[in-house]
Amino acid sequence: MSHPTSEQLQQWRREFHQMPEIGWSEFVTTAKLMSMLREMGYQVLPGKAFLSQDAILGRRQQDVEQGLARAQAYGISPQLIAEMAGLTGCVAQLDTGVAGPTIAMRFDIDCVVVAESQHPQHIPAQLGFASENPGYMHACGHDGHMAIGLGVAQWLMASRSTLKGRFKLIFQPAEEGVRGAKPVAEGGILDDVDYFFSAHLGMGCPSGEIMVNPLEFLCTTKLDFRFYGAPAHAGINPQGGANALAGACHCVTQLLGIPRHGDGMTRINVGTLHAGEGRNVIPAKAELQLEVRGANQAINQYMIAQALNIGIGIAQSYGLRFEHEVMGEAVDLHNDTELIDLVSRVACNEIGLKPREGLFGGSEDATLLVKRVQDLGGKAIYFVLGSTIAAGHHEASFDIDESSLLQGVQVFTGCIRVLSGR
Amino acid sequence: MSHPTSEQLQQWRREFHQMPEIGWSEFVTTAKLMSMLREMGYQVLPGKAFLSQDAILGRRQQDVEQGLARAQAYGISPQLIAEMAGLTGCVAQLDTGVAGPTIAMRFDIDCVVVAESQHPQHIPAQLGFASENPGYMHACGHDGHMAIGLGVAQWLMASRSTLKGRFKLIFQPAEEGVRGAKPVAEGGILDDVDYFFSAHLGMGCPSGEIMVNPLEFLCTTKLDFRFYGAPAHAGINPQGGANALAGACHCVTQLLGIPRHGDGMTRINVGTLHAGEGRNVIPAKAELQLEVRGANQAINQYMIAQALNIGIGIAQSYGLRFEHEVMGEAVDLHNDTELIDLVSRVACNEIGLKPREGLFGGSEDATLLVKRVQDLGGKAIYFVLGSTIAAGHHEASFDIDESSLLQGVQVFTGCIRVLSGR
Amino acid sequence: MSHPTSEQLQQWRREFHQMPEIGWSEFVTTAKLMSMLREMGYQVLPGKAFLSQDAILGRRQQDVEQGLARAQAYGISPQLIAEMAGLTGCVAQLDTGVAGPTIAMRFDIDCVVVAESQHPQHIPAQLGFASENPGYMHACGHDGHMAIGLGVAQWLMASRSTLKGRFKLIFQPAEEGVRGAKPVAEGGILDDVDYFFSAHLGMGCPSGEIMVNPLEFLCTTKLDFRFYGAPAHAGINPQGGANALAGACHCVTQLLGIPRHGDGMTRINVGTLHAGEGRNVIPAKAELQLEVRGANQAINQYMIAQALNIGIGIAQSYGLRFEHEVMGEAVDLHNDTELIDLVSRVACNEIGLKPREGLFGGSEDATLLVKRVQDLGGKAIYFVLGSTIAAGHHEASFDIDESSLLQGVQVFTGCIRVLSGR
Amino acid sequence: MSHPTSEQLQQWRREFHQMPEIGWSEFVTTAKLMSMLREMGYQVLPGKAFLSQDAILGRRQQDVEQGLARAQAYGISPQLIAEMAGLTGCVAQLDTGVAGPTIAMRFDIDCVVVAESQHPQHIPAQLGFASENPGYMHACGHDGHMAIGLGVAQWLMASRSTLKGRFKLIFQPAEEGVRGAKPVAEGGILDDVDYFFSAHLGMGCPSGEIMVNPLEFLCTTKLDFRFYGAPAHAGINPQGGANALAGACHCVTQLLGIPRHGDGMTRINVGTLHAGEGRNVIPAKAELQLEVRGANQAINQYMIAQALNIGIGIAQSYGLRFEHEVMGEAVDLHNDTELIDLVSRVACNEIGLKPREGLFGGSEDATLLVKRVQDLGGKAIYFVLGSTIAAGHHEASFDIDESSLLQGVQVFTGCIRVLSGR
Repeated sequence: MSHPTSEQLQQWRREFHQMPEIGWSEFVTTAKLMSMLREMGYQVLPGKAFLSQDAILGRRQQDVEQGLARAQAYGISPQLIAEMAGLTGCVAQLDTGVAGPTIAMRFDIDCVVVAESQHPQHIPAQLGFASENPGYMHACGHDGHMAIGLGVAQWLMASRSTLKGRFKLIFQPAEEGVRGAKPVAEGGILDDVDYFFSAHLGMGCPSGEIMVNPLEFLCTTKLDFRFYGAPAHAGINPQGGANALAGACHCVTQLLGIPRHGDGMTRINVGTLHAGEGRNVIPAKAELQLEVRGANQAINQYMIAQALNIGIGIAQSYGLRFEHEVMGEAVDLHNDTELIDLVSRVACNEIGLKPREGLFGGSEDATLLVKRVQDLGGKAIYFVLGSTIAAGHHEASFDIDESSLLQGVQVFTGCIRVLSGR
Repeated sequence: MSHPTSEQLQQWRREFHQMPEIGWSEFVTTAKLMSMLREMGYQVLPGKAFLSQDAILGRRQQDVEQGLARAQAYGISPQLIAEMAGLTGCVAQLDTGVAGPTIAMRFDIDCVVVAESQHPQHIPAQLGFASENPGYMHACGHDGHMAIGLGVAQWLMASRSTLKGRFKLIFQPAEEGVRGAKPVAEGGILDDVDYFFSAHLGMGCPSGEIMVNPLEFLCTTKLDFRFYGAPAHAGINPQGGANALAGACHCVTQLLGIPRHGDGMTRINVGTLHAGEGRNVIPAKAELQLEVRGANQAINQYMIAQALNIGIGIAQSYGLRFEHEVMGEAVDLHNDTELIDLVSRVACNEIGLKPREGLFGGSEDATLLVKRVQDLGGKAIYFVLGSTIAAGHHEASFDIDESSLLQGVQVFTGCIRVLSGR
Repeated sequence: MSHPTSEQLQQWRREFHQMPEIGWSEFVTTAKLMSMLREMGYQVLPGKAFLSQDAILGRRQQDVEQGLARAQAYGISPQLIAEMAGLTGCVAQLDTGVAGPTIAMRFDIDCVVVAESQHPQHIPAQLGFASENPGYMHACGHDGHMAIGLGVAQWLMASRSTLKGRFKLIFQPAEEGVRGAKPVAEGGILDDVDYFFSAHLGMGCPSGEIMVNPLEFLCTTKLDFRFYGAPAHAGINPQGGANALAGACHCVTQLLGIPRHGDGMTRINVGTLHAGEGRNVIPAKAELQLEVRGANQAINQYMIAQALNIGIGIAQSYGLRFEHEVMGEAVDLHNDTELIDLVSRVACNEIGLKPREGLFGGSEDATLLVKRVQDLGGKAIYFVLGSTIAAGHHEASFDIDESSLLQGVQVFTGCIRVLSGR
Repeated sequence: MSHPTSEQLQQWRREFHQMPEIGWSEFVTTAKLMSMLREMGYQVLPGKAFLSQDAILGRRQQDVEQGLARAQAYGISPQLIAEMAGLTGCVAQLDTGVAGPTIAMRFDIDCVVVAESQHPQHIPAQLGFASENPGYMHACGHDGHMAIGLGVAQWLMASRSTLKGRFKLIFQPAEEGVRGAKPVAEGGILDDVDYFFSAHLGMGCPSGEIMVNPLEFLCTTKLDFRFYGAPAHAGINPQGGANALAGACHCVTQLLGIPRHGDGMTRINVGTLHAGEGRNVIPAKAELQLEVRGANQAINQYMIAQALNIGIGIAQSYGLRFEHEVMGEAVDLHNDTELIDLVSRVACNEIGLKPREGLFGGSEDATLLVKRVQDLGGKAIYFVLGSTIAAGHHEASFDIDESSLLQGVQVFTGCIRVLSGR
């Protein structure tokens, strides 16, 4: 019934660190997880078995194809590749056979588009476990999340005779861009869950501390806007086209001016804009990647509605065709008091972590999983597990403090013991 | 069969100069014209009898009411006021009783919103015939046009036994803002006309010269745009309103960017914008006065269509109600060769004016009358009669050279003699 | 030592209600206050004696002139008009002659631009004390504030032998538009004050309740932006002018897009925009009335800095001259705990008002006075005194519940007794 | 003294067609030209010897490197590659040794970025001489221009004993984007030239016809605008960055609204815009490719000045760094009457081509060469040589009528015979 050693957790974390994969392309990562979890004795479902395909967001065919090619090159078995059927992520399930609560935990598995630092003072570079997938990096700590998940899995399997109820360990793809949680939630895997736990390493909370109930999660929706017009020679026939670049620029100037909301914070960002084909051609195509945020779901919906009205109005003004696509979604967070108390007790009283209050400020799609569980009557929590980081999240020299990993496992297992101990 | 003396023309011109009236409010002016023309022996129709009421553009109720009050105060007889029935302008008709062509001439009668110079070197101030309607001034020469029209009328009546055919002298209201010609054209008064003549004094052409075929008349349409939204407290409820001022501003930024046209000149101006109710209120109303121009009617229509699309799109983007109103219209000019030759011959060979080539550059609603006549098979011309001016048109110290008035009468009557002499 | 009767307070309030005067034009109001307070025995300073003239904001010459004319017509004595010297507001001072704290109170005296309801169910209309200054109305309760101020003054003078220390009753002009507090603060009248009290009637708090510590006061700055360009004929010479209307519209589209702030709420509103001279003239002038707000002073400063950068940039882009003028200012509110406790005790325990929590949401320039006192070591509070209102603040049928007036006096005097009782 | 055969011209044209090279990368093309011209007996200067390096526009290092690699792979000799020293284009010179005029001719050599049609009805595809440089194509006829140039060169060398004076055949790089003429003009190679000839195939003029004096060449300047800001997390720190994308979009909305010009046509196009790094990051970089045009140089300068003012103003408004770079330039065209008459006589009377009037509508950098010659007292002409084309210029199935090539040679040589015959 003992926990894995810190060394084991470190080794897992470093193995994942070395092979970072962007959302929806985590085929090597998923294959490793599935193999390890099956080896431990779990029944493991591939993404195909639990993701709602209609609810998948922001999955780029190009990323999927590169991921599959990488998996083949890496030597993942054809059977496993076939079983994954183009979808990443997996769920490990355990039924103790004794009546009791159903507990789910979620660990996210994707990386970010950052070229990892090669500086000798950057530990992964120094110790030789830096990214081997150029331009991609586990710079947000998801490698650590997976290590914690495996540690919990190992402890659970070893302790199963002392536990009651059922367990689901969800290894979720595509958290970056808040894309992967929606198909998990809508796939139904959480619908019988009584307790749900998820956590993030770092996030401004130093090693030895825990932010049990981080506040100010912003609801968010990630959107792509596309405008299609018609080209024309800009010198001879300037009136002949339909200028998608002009429409897109006016769209941006309107989007940035969406009114603030009296009931709470809002955000709007147009992160990228690419438009036009050549200097002397009326531009026929424009693409915008944007995101809106709101302090709650009503405010976020307000932002979406305003943004879409603007897109439609611009298309009318400029004679363009307007398309939009939802690329990601997350909601706000309302941790259940019962679990706030439980995690506090376990983390602070038993493990000795120091409590810390704090604001999250950003967005996280685990909130969709929390909401799904709560909507169906379960209790759920998302907390921040302290880990002193070497640089900001998503920076090239980001690194977690590996000593936090064991603490992470202990918080999860401590809570399980309380809720599911026989 | 002699022409009026220069002194008579000067006296008429100065009488009109003293009582300038803005478009659709020319009740004193019209009453004077009707009385004088009836005294000469003409059958005179009031505006009501020949203007198409559906086609009236840019007639502001406030101007009409002020004009009526001015007419009463001036001592215009109640009978005449009743006969005008709220509409200005008149047509004097003469039938010689002998078969022959029908010839129409147009003289415009309204003034502009300019406060006349009181400078002692400004002749009307010096000689005591400056505007007695403060803030308004005959600063475009229409007072001279009316004097020429009366001179032609006097000559015609005196010469009628030597002439054949029929004559219509149209004294048109509301030329400024290109508002009054449309209801004249659509009222049908020109539909049996064989020859149509109109002219403008000044316009860059000095005394003693004539621009028989001025080029580059731009088609134009004058539009009012209005946006209606909803107010809200800008501090407490910024998302609650629908911001008409924001919509109007984005509308302007889009309007000014309507693409140039490869086939010819375009223009767009938003001349005025008034929006909002108070500093801390989301603005609920915005009004724009704008105009578009184009080298020909197709290009002008392109500009209108683009502008309206923008208005509609903005309303969609900002949740506003959008209204537009056409406030004025003019088209391009294509003088008939037969009349270009005739006017040249009369003006240059007989009267001794020096021919001049030139560009008009602006817009004039006599073009709608020219077009109506031409569309129905008649011939038409609009020319510029030289008159050295003291300052630019629409400036406070504008003044014509009164010696041009007799030359103007002579050009008209010379042409009539050629076309209608027995 | 008794309070004024409710009837007396009602009569005062109705007298002021009948003669509402807009900020910086309150000459009748000020003259009445000065006379009454002098009659009670106070030494009374006119505005000139305590307002910092350099710090006066948003004082329109036209309002001042109309106010002076009104005062003359009303029969205010030439001596009093001369004493006011063009500035409104007054301060009544009382020195008990016994060492003790200096206490200041502020009552605001101006009205808003609202045409009062004539509906028979609107009490002021029904009872014949509705506004006699058409288009203006005490629709924010400042008439009641003055009645309370006079009631406190009467009590103070009557009770002076039982009190120690000194008292200043500040009757402040031009609170609307947050214009009048700055010259009060910078004039120094508060610099020796130990305790400062101010209050507002209504504001969503019903009769019988009190909001001792309202939250979410937004810092705000009111700004006028003006752009000056050059006119040109829009048809003939479109490139010749410098388009102030175009610059203003682009300015608005940029202002509305000033980025949100991660540390707290912001607001931006362009409430009015007036630009242009005529439809066919490149517009040479544009004026914007705008306001920014921020959850704290740093955020408000950020908004101001962004707005000014935009104005400067626009002037550069469009070849315009840019002017800005600060028209009003308020800051956020941090009531002192000592006074929160004191007002609560007096209002709830002694007078029996029910405490209420609440958000203010808007802005108030009493905050500048609070800040001045606190910056120099004094204690200060601003609270909301419940009064059930007939319609929203600034609406045509707004009316206070006059029964609150006596409660208001009692809260002020109750606190004074505690702090200054011998 | 005979001309090359049509077959020879066709063979040269097809050889160049097969190896299209984009501006400033025409190393294979230049090497072939230099070798052929030297073989004919000419003294040939490489680009380095006659191009002003300070005046080079729009030369992308990446294109140069790819071009050099292509030349190596193609087997161009290292000596020739070294001689070109990174610059393309060449000039062949011939001195007859007999006193006489100096005549220069210009033939442009670069291709466009178009993927050539593979359709079997597209003659180059059918006959196997389609582009072997994927994504690039001679879709503007410059392959034909080079064939004509070689034909003229061959005839000149063969006829030299019958001619007097000197000859310069300029094979100019980078005409597309109007980039290559400026360094030719400023390099001085034309400064002793008495007569200058250049021509374009096609351009709406069918085989058998010639447009000796095409009108409406627009002056143009090609500009790149770049804005540099600062990134920040769009959720947590939206106020922290400097938004280059927002600035760029407002820049576009302002650029498209640069006022029309009363003196003649203007154009403005922002052809491409690329901005931003990621959806949730305040964008730190934006790049715009734009072009302005004007009916004459003053109007074009007006457009440039307006555009730069806007860029500077935007940088001010958004706290960005603004850079601009001139990427290309051409001016308007004023053919000399003496050469209009000469070309007409030769082409129509001698060769039998049918004269055609027409508008060019676009821009051409040969105009800079024409202007250089004229400014120094020489005579110059640019004409359009009819060639029925299979599809519009810059389209994938563009093809010239090869029978025009010989006519082209004959027009040039016919003029030379007149001007330089002994």
